[in-house]
Amino acid sequence: MIAKTPPPPYYAVIFTNLRTEGDNGYEAMAGKMEELSSGQPGYLGIEHARDGLGITISYWESLEAIKNWKANTEHLEAQALGRSTWYAHFKTRICKVERDYEF
Amino acid sequence: MIAKTPPPPYYAVIFTNLRTEGDNGYEAMAGKMEELSSGQPGYLGIEHARDGLGITISYWESLEAIKNWKANTEHLEAQALGRSTWYAHFKTRICKVERDYEF
Repeated sequence: MIAKTPPPPYYAVIFTNLRTEGDNGYEAMAGKMEELSSGQPGYLGIEHARDGLGITISYWESLEAIKNWKANTEHLEAQALGRSTWYAHFKTRICKVERDYEF
Repeated sequence: MIAKTPPPPYYAVIFTNLRTEGDNGYEAMAGKMEELSSGQPGYLGIEHARDGLGITISYWESLEAIKNWKANTEHLEAQALGRSTWYAHFKTRICKVERDYEF
């Protein structure tokens, strides 16, 4: 669903990825990480879609909140498995959301 | 595919949307707009995925480039049809990409 974020400025982490073949525990971990991230300080919401290319965007109050989530112990384990097993290619972009509007 | 963007800073337009039922000319227009946008000054790349929620992220050199594309005559017609016909709900976020890394 479309994330209900507060008025800007806030931050977005755009994670664009191509998976390897097979599940290999990915879906279970993705669900776990989504639940875990949503409980972190400064978390504002998440959006994702996949049809070949996967895009996950998480929204955060500050760069500090993003840094803390990146350094979370369980998340570090998931990141290592992402590199070793689940992702053929990914790109992460850290962004400041300056304006938004909706319909 | 994952967009090949230059080193930051650059800008991203995150367009998250929920479609109405039926195609109603959407796919043809989406292809036309993707082609047209890619020829605009300051265009850097595009990424999209949909599985229920649709996410399209276009990347640009500057806010000026984003403003010019938003005001493009053919794009304005597509935006009007988006509001009247294709989208049940959308949110657009204008972001400055401050850092990125890839694997």
